[in-house]
Amino acid sequence: MTSLPRFPGLPEVEPLDQSLRAELQHIIDTKTKPPGSLGRLETLARQMGLIQRTTHPTVNRPAMIVFAGDHGIAAEGVSPYPQAVTAQMVANFLAGGAAINALSRVAGLELEVVNAGIATPLPSTAGLVDIPVAAGTRNFAHEPAMTRDQALAAMRPGALRVRHHAALGSNVIGFGEMGIANTSAAACLMSRLCGVPIDECVGRGTGLDNAGLARKRNVLASALAHHPVSTDPFEVLATFGGFEIAMMAGAYLAAAEARMTILVDGFIATSALLIADALAPSVREYCVFAHASNEAGHRRMLDHFGAQPLLALDMRLGEGSGAALAVPLLRAAAAFVNEMASFESAGVANRDV
Amino acid sequence: MTSLPRFPGLPEVEPLDQSLRAELQHIIDTKTKPPGSLGRLETLARQMGLIQRTTHPTVNRPAMIVFAGDHGIAAEGVSPYPQAVTAQMVANFLAGGAAINALSRVAGLELEVVNAGIATPLPSTAGLVDIPVAAGTRNFAHEPAMTRDQALAAMRPGALRVRHHAALGSNVIGFGEMGIANTSAAACLMSRLCGVPIDECVGRGTGLDNAGLARKRNVLASALAHHPVSTDPFEVLATFGGFEIAMMAGAYLAAAEARMTILVDGFIATSALLIADALAPSVREYCVFAHASNEAGHRRMLDHFGAQPLLALDMRLGEGSGAALAVPLLRAAAAFVNEMASFESAGVANRDV
Repeated sequence: MTSLPRFPGLPEVEPLDQSLRAELQHIIDTKTKPPGSLGRLETLARQMGLIQRTTHPTVNRPAMIVFAGDHGIAAEGVSPYPQAVTAQMVANFLAGGAAINALSRVAGLELEVVNAGIATPLPSTAGLVDIPVAAGTRNFAHEPAMTRDQALAAMRPGALRVRHHAALGSNVIGFGEMGIANTSAAACLMSRLCGVPIDECVGRGTGLDNAGLARKRNVLASALAHHPVSTDPFEVLATFGGFEIAMMAGAYLAAAEARMTILVDGFIATSALLIADALAPSVREYCVFAHASNEAGHRRMLDHFGAQPLLALDMRLGEGSGAALAVPLLRAAAAFVNEMASFESAGVANRDV
Repeated sequence: MTSLPRFPGLPEVEPLDQSLRAELQHIIDTKTKPPGSLGRLETLARQMGLIQRTTHPTVNRPAMIVFAGDHGIAAEGVSPYPQAVTAQMVANFLAGGAAINALSRVAGLELEVVNAGIATPLPSTAGLVDIPVAAGTRNFAHEPAMTRDQALAAMRPGALRVRHHAALGSNVIGFGEMGIANTSAAACLMSRLCGVPIDECVGRGTGLDNAGLARKRNVLASALAHHPVSTDPFEVLATFGGFEIAMMAGAYLAAAEARMTILVDGFIATSALLIADALAPSVREYCVFAHASNEAGHRRMLDHFGAQPLLALDMRLGEGSGAALAVPLLRAAAAFVNEMASFESAGVANRDV
């Protein structure tokens, strides 16, 4: 790995404080159930307790921030949808008609939509956090997607959005994204940062056919060959990333700094975590990997983190949809640890009595 | 399979009405998302729509019925917990201190607890549906667990409890169970009805060690050899079943008859479905397989139904805990199909435009 200087203005992430681990485990083990029988809920409860430094973890004001941005690489025909769809879908988010609106509502999530750098003018910005770095990135088939200054300039406001929610009391946060062609950006980030050949990182995105998939592979292989090989996270982010991905990388760091439980969504959201994790590896200790996307490279990306996702529902939508579905599991984890009786308090005989 | 006479007093299950399938699929496919990108949520939405005969499926007053009963086979030392724990845990349910209480509360489930046949007197019955068939089954190591009349006498009240909730407006229902040694009963039902050798049906239950597991295998192999081989569902249920399992089998039939979406929990709940399914195979079309339990035989039992469970969280608690965790996924499925905009209504360009 590269040596990692601290960057001014970016959050500082502390390793997860383990001091309550034994106490939390004892509480979990003496609940009226066979030890370990709540499986992953027990792991979640312990992780949330450690993050929140309490034996009574809660899910308070959970929030979802969807970052949207456009990608110059879209000009290469790597997506079956036109670039204008990014702005159109953001309008759909603001009107309440997208999947993440429905899923946030049923999950009780506060939903915020951020323009990180959309290319097309938006019909309305009412309700939007409108902080674009630029009107889309450049086409990384020919030149770096952004400058290093732009990458840093995107990460900082991503962090600030998280601090805003932390200040309002949120202790659980998820991040989603919208950006036509952003699976192409994510695949290149993955290839560079995980050291995986590009063909294994490229998937069908929003639904490419076989010819489209072959084209996307060729475009991205050429693009990667066009730029110097580097594993420096800022270099890789600037070369191939998107403004929504950069803001999300900053958001991860701020969420870990604020000791929030972070719900990691799918392929693009996990690619942004690759950047954050390369800058501050402790960030992953605050993460709950919400689901395994059907986008081809996601399982391999999860392996990079040694992550076992909570859900595997054959989804590949983005927007934070998989992260939203995991919120009830966090609530269930907090509920059992706070509300269940112990064998002693309930007068239930323990095993082998 | 045996020929299946209709039994008076048991619910009649119609095959799932498919007439809205194409219309539902069209609605799902024109939502503002890549086709198929909500994965299993799309399948769930379609199934709920078909069951409810509507293009606007809902989750209304979801209910959880936990059936509790004792098993004579417990005398053979097949569980690490004493039989008295069944009654103690029912008291815990009634006091609100068990896992299913916490999980039902966060899932917004109406929770009902039924004494189907507990051996130990209960300290209090306030809040309990107290309709025991008998004070526990007989020890099927030596004699059938119950008579055929008792099996039928248990299935009918199980059905009546479901009709009670259907009359109150519930259109989603899950079933849980409590009964020391009931993984032994379920393993024998599975071995007979799925034709699987008993060793592949037996697991550690609430947490047997290796010696306990070996003992359980021996006890159950001997018990199976002691009784005539039969695949008649009533015969198998009467020989090896429990009153909670029999009531649950009747409950499945009534839930399908009432066109409710049925959440199938883990190993014991699925064994009860084996009985219901043998009597009326259409019942499985109303079922959502909520989770894969860590109890050894459950995956194989799910294979019998060709079922892909929604969740795999390493749980093995019973009580309906896995079923409760799937409720938010049903809500999410209903939410996206009812609330999302279509490409046309949102003014979003569709692919390849």
